Amino acid sequence: MTALTLESRGGLARAGRLHTAHGDIETPVFMPVGTQGSVKGVSPDELTAAGVQIALANAYHLYLRPGAPLIAAAGGLHAFMGWRGSILTDSGGFQVFSLARLSRVDDEGYHFASHLDGSRHSFTPESVVALQAALASDIAMVLDDCAPAGIDEAQARQSAERTLRWAERARAALTPSVQLTFAIAQGSTYEPLRRMQCRALRALDFAGYAIGGLWVGEPRTDGIAMAAVCCEELPQEKPRYLMGVGTPEDIIECIAVGVDMFDSVYPTRCARHALALTSSGRLNLRNAANARDLRPLDEQCTCLCCRQFSRAYLAHCFRAGETLAARLVSIHNIAFLVQLTRAARCAIVEGRFAAWHDQQLSAFAADRKG
Amino acid sequence: MTALTLESRGGLARAGRLHTAHGDIETPVFMPVGTQGSVKGVSPDELTAAGVQIALANAYHLYLRPGAPLIAAAGGLHAFMGWRGSILTDSGGFQVFSLARLSRVDDEGYHFASHLDGSRHSFTPESVVALQAALASDIAMVLDDCAPAGIDEAQARQSAERTLRWAERARAALTPSVQLTFAIAQGSTYEPLRRMQCRALRALDFAGYAIGGLWVGEPRTDGIAMAAVCCEELPQEKPRYLMGVGTPEDIIECIAVGVDMFDSVYPTRCARHALALTSSGRLNLRNAANARDLRPLDEQCTCLCCRQFSRAYLAHCFRAGETLAARLVSIHNIAFLVQLTRAARCAIVEGRFAAWHDQQLSAFAADRKG
Repeated sequence: MTALTLESRGGLARAGRLHTAHGDIETPVFMPVGTQGSVKGVSPDELTAAGVQIALANAYHLYLRPGAPLIAAAGGLHAFMGWRGSILTDSGGFQVFSLARLSRVDDEGYHFASHLDGSRHSFTPESVVALQAALASDIAMVLDDCAPAGIDEAQARQSAERTLRWAERARAALTPSVQLTFAIAQGSTYEPLRRMQCRALRALDFAGYAIGGLWVGEPRTDGIAMAAVCCEELPQEKPRYLMGVGTPEDIIECIAVGVDMFDSVYPTRCARHALALTSSGRLNLRNAANARDLRPLDEQCTCLCCRQFSRAYLAHCFRAGETLAARLVSIHNIAFLVQLTRAARCAIVEGRFAAWHDQQLSAFAADRKG
Repeated sequence: MTALTLESRGGLARAGRLHTAHGDIETPVFMPVGTQGSVKGVSPDELTAAGVQIALANAYHLYLRPGAPLIAAAGGLHAFMGWRGSILTDSGGFQVFSLARLSRVDDEGYHFASHLDGSRHSFTPESVVALQAALASDIAMVLDDCAPAGIDEAQARQSAERTLRWAERARAALTPSVQLTFAIAQGSTYEPLRRMQCRALRALDFAGYAIGGLWVGEPRTDGIAMAAVCCEELPQEKPRYLMGVGTPEDIIECIAVGVDMFDSVYPTRCARHALALTSSGRLNLRNAANARDLRPLDEQCTCLCCRQFSRAYLAHCFRAGETLAARLVSIHNIAFLVQLTRAARCAIVEGRFAAWHDQQLSAFAADRKG
């Protein structure tokens, strides 16, 4: 069975249907992040009500705590988290790279000390396949060799080549399963490397492909350009997932170059800083103007937060240090990005994506100026 | 209209129905506390699902922030908070007493500096009536002169006498309204004072009566004894509210002496410290034994938390610093105290309160030993 059914196109933008063991997912899709098995402050029921079809969790974090054996004993990550939708687990390469006290990366894999207790561990392409099989996520990611922004081409080539060798090993370690496995394309901001990496990974025939190593500090236009290059090289009939993106603007622009899947902590992190995403741009609940405003965050939004609470109430709760505020705005911000990707899908299917794209971008550009 | 219809008795314990502008409330009743207009971490929908009929808010906090004019403009506290059940507002005397930088208390009222910004304010019996009318709560409390534990009888008498004079002024300031107003009995741990205070307040014919100034540091047995004394003196046909209580044991014992209404931050505060209330006693989610326990908190509980999540998941979320954990256990703990008061009511109506009382107390006593 193919993972993606492509339903419609609008320029390079695509509307599809991604098939997982926990149901079909309409793409383009935004995936909220539950790093440690909980989307910060938001319950599974609220994710469902916000229209979320698939959530992320992180294999590195869950491996260290509470450990894969407990999650397997609970019946897998879905049962453990109480979430009936689909789950994508990130392999943990990026977290080892950014969080752990990394002692060594070599051709075998990562050798690191836990950021929690300093205990020593290794991640190999094979062990990470087994780990995610135990977690029983719907989509697993291969281990990749993450590289920081601003590296030279030789370093980027080395990282891409190791990522490819690890992908080959992960491919060989896969056993027949309902779990889909995605490879990850590295190559920093070097177009020839990105093209070579995508072509080589494509030949390995993974269920889907992720574009990694972007939005890590390089100029935003480089990120979008590299996403576009990868989308040119990746197979049409497979899902494409741009890791760690993002903001409404980034999502809109990367749907336009052919990306299907996005994940980011942006909506929940913004919410904890009292920042709401709305159809007329960003809204800071700590601004005095909102303290007496009895309208909902977004009059066009039908989320739980907008149906029941005013800007004034949310602003009061933020000022009063009530955790309900961050939770309600998290729900809204997630619902907003879900609705944004749905609206993009609708525009693609109805043949008006270009106009929709321009109109949406201008709402957020105006907000940035204001 | 009378505020309370008494339906059944079991010894001194009472089952009744309290009539408010937002519906009838079955008593005995536990009221969770939303000091600043939000029960910490729990949404109004979750309160409803937990069986909550009435929630508390605090006039002192809401007066300082966001201010009564904004809440009145929003259509009252129910609309502002998004809560359709009943609301009792505490007058704020206790908060002025415990939180504010109190500059002076005299016969006129409290003169204090805000704990938020140091701004100067006064609360009088009349201003507090008007404040709670603007908040449009279902039940308002008069301003009382709170006294700390351990004061001598002369000081306690002075506090009780001032409380009585203030109650008379509040009574005179009341205008016809659907809002019920309760007087508050002071008198520290001096039985004659408590009796005198209750008789004098009773003559003022308030809609209901609160027992204040207990559980502020005195021995627990004194608190229960004083609650019993007050219940002897207060009118049978009016509701009795014991302020700031409490734990399961305290609630059970005070229902037995004739109290109808309870409020406390105990269930939400416990939850933030990873402590769950269960039918077999307290359960500390930071204990290693719970980290691998895939059972719900309480197998007899039907709350949202127990229906969906295991002890192991909650323990993981506490360890991982995920705010979802405190929220879920808050929901459970509130539901537990609501179910406890419901079970008490059922036992009273069915003529088996004494046996129920003994059995429940022993479950929590065993837990304290263990």
